[in-house]
Amino acid sequence: MQVLNGHRTIRKYTGENISEALLRKILYSGTRASTTGNMQVYSIIVTRDESMKNQLSPCHFNQPMIKEAPVVLTFCADFNRFNKWCRMRDASPGYDNFLSFVTAAIDALLVAQNVCVAAEDEGLGICYLGTTTYMAEQIINILELPQGVVPITTVTLGYPAEDPPLTDRLPLDAIVHHEKYSDYSADDIDRLYGEKEALPENIAFVKENNLQTLAQVFTEVRYKKSDNEAFSKALLSVLEGQGFMNHQR
Amino acid sequence: MQVLNGHRTIRKYTGENISEALLRKILYSGTRASTTGNMQVYSIIVTRDESMKNQLSPCHFNQPMIKEAPVVLTFCADFNRFNKWCRMRDASPGYDNFLSFVTAAIDALLVAQNVCVAAEDEGLGICYLGTTTYMAEQIINILELPQGVVPITTVTLGYPAEDPPLTDRLPLDAIVHHEKYSDYSADDIDRLYGEKEALPENIAFVKENNLQTLAQVFTEVRYKKSDNEAFSKALLSVLEGQGFMNHQR
Repeated sequence: MQVLNGHRTIRKYTGENISEALLRKILYSGTRASTTGNMQVYSIIVTRDESMKNQLSPCHFNQPMIKEAPVVLTFCADFNRFNKWCRMRDASPGYDNFLSFVTAAIDALLVAQNVCVAAEDEGLGICYLGTTTYMAEQIINILELPQGVVPITTVTLGYPAEDPPLTDRLPLDAIVHHEKYSDYSADDIDRLYGEKEALPENIAFVKENNLQTLAQVFTEVRYKKSDNEAFSKALLSVLEGQGFMNHQR
Repeated sequence: MQVLNGHRTIRKYTGENISEALLRKILYSGTRASTTGNMQVYSIIVTRDESMKNQLSPCHFNQPMIKEAPVVLTFCADFNRFNKWCRMRDASPGYDNFLSFVTAAIDALLVAQNVCVAAEDEGLGICYLGTTTYMAEQIINILELPQGVVPITTVTLGYPAEDPPLTDRLPLDAIVHHEKYSDYSADDIDRLYGEKEALPENIAFVKENNLQTLAQVFTEVRYKKSDNEAFSKALLSVLEGQGFMNHQR
C-alpha cells in the first residue's frame, strides 16, 4: 500500500544500470497479474541498446526519458504467440477481431501496472509514455512486431535522480459512484476541480501558455482535437494492419 | 512484491462485508496510479445493492461471484466528467474519438490493477470479469452510464473462502523479447507451452470437453470466433453510441 500511495512519476534517472536479474524479477511479478482465461496474450519488449533507444525516441516525441533511462519496456497486446500455438494444435484461432485486441490490451496493461509496482518496490522509478498508441505504426516497424501484436504502452525504468512531491488528484468522490452513475452538476464540477485549479503550479501553467483556464491548456495545447483525430485514424489503421479488424471485411 | 507474486483469483467469499472505510482506502490507492496528463479519465461504480447485483449478473453470464461478493467494482473509461469541466471553462474538448477511448481505458485499467493489489494487501480476494467488454451495452443501461463513459472491466471483492494454488504461467522467456520481437519457431511453441499442456488439470480439461488439444478448448469452447466477432461488433457499436467514434462520421 505504501508503494502504491507513494507513487510519483520519475523522469530523471541516475546513470546506474538495472541488472538483468533484477529486471527479470520485476517482469516475473508482472506475469503474476490476472490474464483473460490464463491466455497471457501480451509480450514485453526490453530496450537497453542505445541505437534502439535513438530509433524509438522520436516515436515518443523525443521525451528525454527514452534515451536517459537504462531500460525501456514496450508492453504489447499479443495474439501472435497464442495463434501459432492454436494452429500447431489443430485448433482454429478466432482472434483476428476488435474484441480480441481489447482483451489482449487489457492483459498487457494489468501486467504493465504490476511491473511498475514491483519496480517501485525495488527502489526504481518509472514513467509511463502515452505516446505509444499515437505512434504505434512506427514502433511496430522499429521493434519488428508481427501481425497480431500492437504496442499499448511504454514504461521507462531507472534509479531515481529526482524526488518530486506527490501529484494532485481529484477527490475520491469525483471518481467513485454508488450503485449508479451520478452525473455531475455544474456545482459538482466547480467543487471537484476547485483544488486542482487553485494550485500555484497550475495557475502558473495557464499563464505560461497565455490562456484563461487550465482546461484550455488541455484542449488547446496538450491534447488537441486535431491531434487526437489524426492519432485515432492512425491507430484504427494499425489495428487493421495487424489483423484485428477482420470481422469488418 | 509478495502480494504481487502471491496473487490467485478468488471466486469464493465468506459472508463478511467490506467496510466503507476499507473500501475507500483501497480505492484511494487506485487513484494514485499513473494517469495520462493527470486527467484521471475514469470512474469506478461500486455495487453493493442486491437488486443491482441481480441485474448485473446476466451481463457476466451469471458467474456466481457477482451475487456472492460483497462488493462489485465496474471500472469505466470516462471522458464525461472531463468534457463537462472543459465546457464550463471555455475550452472545447476534442475527446469524442477512438484515441481518447483508448487513453481513458488505459487509465481505468491501471487504476483497476492498483485497486486489486491494494485489496490483496488488505487480505481481500479479487476476481476480474472479462465479460464487461462483451456486454458493455447492457451494463451501460443498468449503471446509467452517460455519453463518454464505457465500462472496461469488473472486479469482485471479498474476504477469501478458498485458498487455491498459484495458477501456471508461461516461462518468462515466452513473454519477454530483447531489443526486437523474436518470432516463435515451432520448436519454441512446443517448448514454451509444454509445461502448461502437461499439467494434469489441463489434460483433464481436454478430456472433459471431448477434445484432442488444450488449444481446442480455447478455440471451440471458451473463446470462440463466432462469439468474439459478435462481441466485437457490439463493442464497436457501444463506442459509437457513447460518442468515441465521431471522427469517422
